[in-house]
Amino acid sequence: MNFSEERNKRTAYIESILQRYLPPAEGYQKIIMEAMEYSLMAGGKRLRPMLMWETFRLFGGQGRKIEPFMAAIEMIHTYSLVHDDLPAMDNDEYRRGRKTTHIVYGEDMGILAGDALLNYAFETACSAFDDEETDPVQAGRALQILARKAGIYGMIGGQVVDVKESGHAVSGETLDFIYRLKTSALIESSMMIGAVLAGADKDQVSAMEKIGEKIGLAFQIQDDILDVTGNEEDLGKPVHSDEKNEKTTYVTWKGLEKAREDVARMTEEAVKELRRFDAPDDFLEQLLVSLVGRKK
Amino acid sequence: MNFSEERNKRTAYIESILQRYLPPAEGYQKIIMEAMEYSLMAGGKRLRPMLMWETFRLFGGQGRKIEPFMAAIEMIHTYSLVHDDLPAMDNDEYRRGRKTTHIVYGEDMGILAGDALLNYAFETACSAFDDEETDPVQAGRALQILARKAGIYGMIGGQVVDVKESGHAVSGETLDFIYRLKTSALIESSMMIGAVLAGADKDQVSAMEKIGEKIGLAFQIQDDILDVTGNEEDLGKPVHSDEKNEKTTYVTWKGLEKAREDVARMTEEAVKELRRFDAPDDFLEQLLVSLVGRKK
Repeated sequence: MNFSEERNKRTAYIESILQRYLPPAEGYQKIIMEAMEYSLMAGGKRLRPMLMWETFRLFGGQGRKIEPFMAAIEMIHTYSLVHDDLPAMDNDEYRRGRKTTHIVYGEDMGILAGDALLNYAFETACSAFDDEETDPVQAGRALQILARKAGIYGMIGGQVVDVKESGHAVSGETLDFIYRLKTSALIESSMMIGAVLAGADKDQVSAMEKIGEKIGLAFQIQDDILDVTGNEEDLGKPVHSDEKNEKTTYVTWKGLEKAREDVARMTEEAVKELRRFDAPDDFLEQLLVSLVGRKK
Repeated sequence: MNFSEERNKRTAYIESILQRYLPPAEGYQKIIMEAMEYSLMAGGKRLRPMLMWETFRLFGGQGRKIEPFMAAIEMIHTYSLVHDDLPAMDNDEYRRGRKTTHIVYGEDMGILAGDALLNYAFETACSAFDDEETDPVQAGRALQILARKAGIYGMIGGQVVDVKESGHAVSGETLDFIYRLKTSALIESSMMIGAVLAGADKDQVSAMEKIGEKIGLAFQIQDDILDVTGNEEDLGKPVHSDEKNEKTTYVTWKGLEKAREDVARMTEEAVKELRRFDAPDDFLEQLLVSLVGRKK
């Protein structure tokens, strides 16, 4: 298997799912569908739906019942970026080299496009109840995870503390809390939902939650490292922004060497956990490893 | 039955449900729970959960399985007000005589509190899947309605067109579209979900959707009338705001007399439809009629 070819193939598959689940741009409210598409189709690694699909396969999941949830998790990730970029939040005019949603559509539509994506994520996931192949109890469990991990005990909770504590130094404990909620929660959600819809049992779903947490932390710490060591061209965003904003990061907290070691260690632990399960191929393992060495 | 006493009793019951389903204010992210409570417990008619409960009773629903959905619909209504009040939207500093959420907690927390309430609405509704008395297929159907009617084909869709068309005159057709989506959709949702969870059949749920649409329109037109004829004290907000903003309303479109006639006619039609069903008492009918004569 050529990993990078396989990854591109899977990314293209995910993009086609996203496109399929986007609402057609029509009606008096057409502009909101356009803003949703603009933000959702802006590129990106598609890591969350990719992890969801791979975990679904890991537990022998078959068919297309996972697809609405793959679209839903990416919609939730995207809405969080759209609202995060707003003037009252990070006030960013560019993301991935393109103008942010509120710059193109106006601040009011930026707020509404984020709301629309979050709501449409649930609307999309709820289409699972119309699919005869999907057990409604499993769909209900998946929805509970989707909602919980995106909310105040997950992503929003992390976002709140990040916003509240910005502009001054924070403790390592607080930083850890922010990373676990802001970044790990959606990755845990992706892997847990993949497992649930494939019919995995409770212990298996818990194992995926733990793996997701480690991957999320490693991913976020690698982000901190890249802000110090990366270059603007690879990243598509300015570097040294944390230093400029006097932000506490994993690198300022533990130093660059220790941060690198921790990314490697957490990834290794995640891979070790993963090997307890009988994967159909080594794509998922390679994907996790690739996140350590990533330059963007 | 003394209607106004009964109504107060039911309002108190709904307030107790909302309080029970609010997350406790604790943890690093405590401030967001406080902002959620501040906005959710700011009073109001509690019309949507009240209509949901009454429709649930109309179809013989029993027990408490409707309660998470009653809390959820009010959370969705509340988040829409919180985001609507933001500086980039209506820029309102007061609502119901109290400072708006973003004035008290800051604009960033205003955005996040709205997001949190929307997300928590789904999280709350999803708790239905843990309730052994709730059929997961019915819960799934109720969730589909909740998501659809709050989204781009419902409330958000109406909001988008309202924002986009503000500052200039709109056609009667556009106004009708805005009212049906912005106001009727959540009322339809409330009555449909009440029916679904009580085990009503498809035709009965459709009948509730039609009644909800009429009530929503009558409710919104009465709002337009009160902006012309009401007083600030009763309403808890400035009057003649539509005129000031040169807004097209049902009153500017059809005139005050015709608007009044239409509110009465639509309510009458809704009541007539309702009488096809065997209500346990006349509270629901009286509630609908009370909305025509309301001064606030």
